[in-house]
Amino acid sequence: MNANMETIADVTQYMRAAGVRARAAGRVMARAETGAKNAALGAIAGAIEDRADWLAGENARDMRAGRQSGLDAALLDRLELTGSRISAMAEGLRQIAALPDPVGAIRDLNYRPSGIQVGRMRVPLGVIGIIYESRPNVTADAAGLCLKSGNAAILRGGSEAIHSNRAIASCIHAGLKAADLPAESVQVVETTDRAAVGELITMNDQVDVIVPRGGKGLIQRISRDASVPVIKHLDGVCHVYIDDQADPDKAERIAVNAKTQRYGTCNTMETLLVAQGIAESMLPRLAQRYRDAGVELRGCERCRDLVPEMLAATDDDWAAEYLGPVLAVRIVRDLDEALEHIATWSSAHTEAIVTENVTRARRFLREVDSSSVMVNASTRFADGFEYGLGAEIGISTDKLHARGPVGLEGLTTEKWVVLGDGHIRE
Amino acid sequence: MNANMETIADVTQYMRAAGVRARAAGRVMARAETGAKNAALGAIAGAIEDRADWLAGENARDMRAGRQSGLDAALLDRLELTGSRISAMAEGLRQIAALPDPVGAIRDLNYRPSGIQVGRMRVPLGVIGIIYESRPNVTADAAGLCLKSGNAAILRGGSEAIHSNRAIASCIHAGLKAADLPAESVQVVETTDRAAVGELITMNDQVDVIVPRGGKGLIQRISRDASVPVIKHLDGVCHVYIDDQADPDKAERIAVNAKTQRYGTCNTMETLLVAQGIAESMLPRLAQRYRDAGVELRGCERCRDLVPEMLAATDDDWAAEYLGPVLAVRIVRDLDEALEHIATWSSAHTEAIVTENVTRARRFLREVDSSSVMVNASTRFADGFEYGLGAEIGISTDKLHARGPVGLEGLTTEKWVVLGDGHIRE
Repeated sequence: MNANMETIADVTQYMRAAGVRARAAGRVMARAETGAKNAALGAIAGAIEDRADWLAGENARDMRAGRQSGLDAALLDRLELTGSRISAMAEGLRQIAALPDPVGAIRDLNYRPSGIQVGRMRVPLGVIGIIYESRPNVTADAAGLCLKSGNAAILRGGSEAIHSNRAIASCIHAGLKAADLPAESVQVVETTDRAAVGELITMNDQVDVIVPRGGKGLIQRISRDASVPVIKHLDGVCHVYIDDQADPDKAERIAVNAKTQRYGTCNTMETLLVAQGIAESMLPRLAQRYRDAGVELRGCERCRDLVPEMLAATDDDWAAEYLGPVLAVRIVRDLDEALEHIATWSSAHTEAIVTENVTRARRFLREVDSSSVMVNASTRFADGFEYGLGAEIGISTDKLHARGPVGLEGLTTEKWVVLGDGHIRE
Repeated sequence: MNANMETIADVTQYMRAAGVRARAAGRVMARAETGAKNAALGAIAGAIEDRADWLAGENARDMRAGRQSGLDAALLDRLELTGSRISAMAEGLRQIAALPDPVGAIRDLNYRPSGIQVGRMRVPLGVIGIIYESRPNVTADAAGLCLKSGNAAILRGGSEAIHSNRAIASCIHAGLKAADLPAESVQVVETTDRAAVGELITMNDQVDVIVPRGGKGLIQRISRDASVPVIKHLDGVCHVYIDDQADPDKAERIAVNAKTQRYGTCNTMETLLVAQGIAESMLPRLAQRYRDAGVELRGCERCRDLVPEMLAATDDDWAAEYLGPVLAVRIVRDLDEALEHIATWSSAHTEAIVTENVTRARRFLREVDSSSVMVNASTRFADGFEYGLGAEIGISTDKLHARGPVGLEGLTTEKWVVLGDGHIRE
């Protein structure tokens, strides 16, 4: 979009026009060959590297404005494009180029009794709207994933990153042109007017899906107001259940890693469930490790009998996504009570059991209704890279369409293909 | 639900309670073994056959009330449960029992570099809300599909069919009990208060997906007001494109079948596109066949030069889903103009090309963005039975989650399973 933000008088008209261009460009992208898409990704990566100094300069304008308007340190950190972050953007695009192209794959093409052949072809969704906060590297990541999956993208980043995002967009457009693909297949919204988001999420004729990335408040607001379908991520209230037939060393390793490897991620454990048969030996040992790591423990009454310095947990703790060095702990009678607790309190993101008992492992895998269910592994593995997707546009806590880490396949759908030789229905 | 409809004072409370029961029953159904689910389906079929006379009697009450309130003949026909329709319900349930159980299947379980194994397990969606008009056989079909796919169902049929639906529900409950499965896994809403629908489609904590079945007005209203995701079917504005390299006999056979085999179905052709190179030989011949069948033709100017009795088509005709003996006809220059017409006017349901040219067939398959895309076959094949799904809960015109005919798989989703041996993330 070339319009200057100061001249955008009618946001509705501006966004609709962007949608019409995206729809047309999406049709071209849907039939683009894999080689052309990969060439574009490589050319964008090259443009980002060639213009690294200029990108850093444009980013510095955003950083200055951010400091003047009093953005906090965490926001400024996310906004900053350091040299290594610029290199990482280019590297990420090359990694996406190296992934297999999901588009056009046909599966299960079988003859039916009528004589027709019926199968399914994987195809792009069409036009993806991405709404995110002021992390300019998302502009390159999201554009790369949409491009490779044959979609057009409309990107609406945080207004604090507007100069950075425009600069990255110019690299993207240069790369698309170099590969003879339409520049309109990736459009960065140039206006900082918040009404643009309201338009984007209700343009059902022009946009096929919205992917919001950011804090829970942003995502809830968008989900509530959108008429376009939303692939979204809400809470990650993840559980580890230590069964009384757990190997204590594995249990300790997993319980410590799931909580302390990183505090602020959605796949971090927030509640630890311990079977009563193993609590007496396990809990004091774990409490020592958490104490060393500076993790505050909030436990049930029976936990506090074993570990007196624990604070008392309330129902709020069972529901909490702390995203920090705090952990809720509960002693449960057995697997059934653990399953019950998880069904009641989990956000259905990621849960793990630690056990050597194959029957209990099998039940946990089948009965826990979460996007990732694990046996003897840390919840921290719930991630597109660890799962082999190569890259992820986000993690979905929805059940429909895409569940858990969403990679290229989540940006596609399948249509039915039917081949005949003059066949008619009798 | 045992409450008498006359005593349901608080619809909100009534529906929420049903949702809570459905959620609990859904957890049991999700882990139910295939044998138990099949036994329930067989027992329901048996109960329907054993109680056929009573079902016919309950249906006669609805028919009497319907006649008194002046329902039109088409509605009365759909409401009626004849002996053969009752047998067909039982037979349909036995067919669902014979289908493979999709639940619990694990695919692509592979070792990752970290040492964990990662795969995907197919699991039920949870609780399905079905909203339909006064066709009581849908009660049995929908219940059977939800049961087999491990879901709980809340069924809200048209109020004109309330006695029929209650009677079918009692057969369903008898069959579930015989197989030791929870009766609450299939609940028929007992109130005819329209507010029940408003509750059902906004109970996001208790309901995972809504499947509306019925006229476009019903579906649009539900889609607009629902906060629960909706799997929906809107228009079927289906096209057949006769290429100038088509085999004329195949073209005639397909064009006649796609329009005239049944008029009222969503996969019936509504617009015929003919390449200009073949129009002169093809159109008069087709016009004769349509004339014999009593189909009114509305064509472009050039069509009317070849077939003078054609009425003039307007843009309204390109957008129309006639669902009757009317056909819009347009001469196009070539495949590109056909693709352009389809991209502009199609409802993305089903489109077919008739051609002997493999390059054009290949382009049509790749470039047409519809839920079913066909080569040398009648659009009338777009159907769950013809595609081998065994049964369908509906045909989705959405792109996300399920596209085209929706069978058991469309009522499930996939979660990630991770197996380790004490693995942690470094």
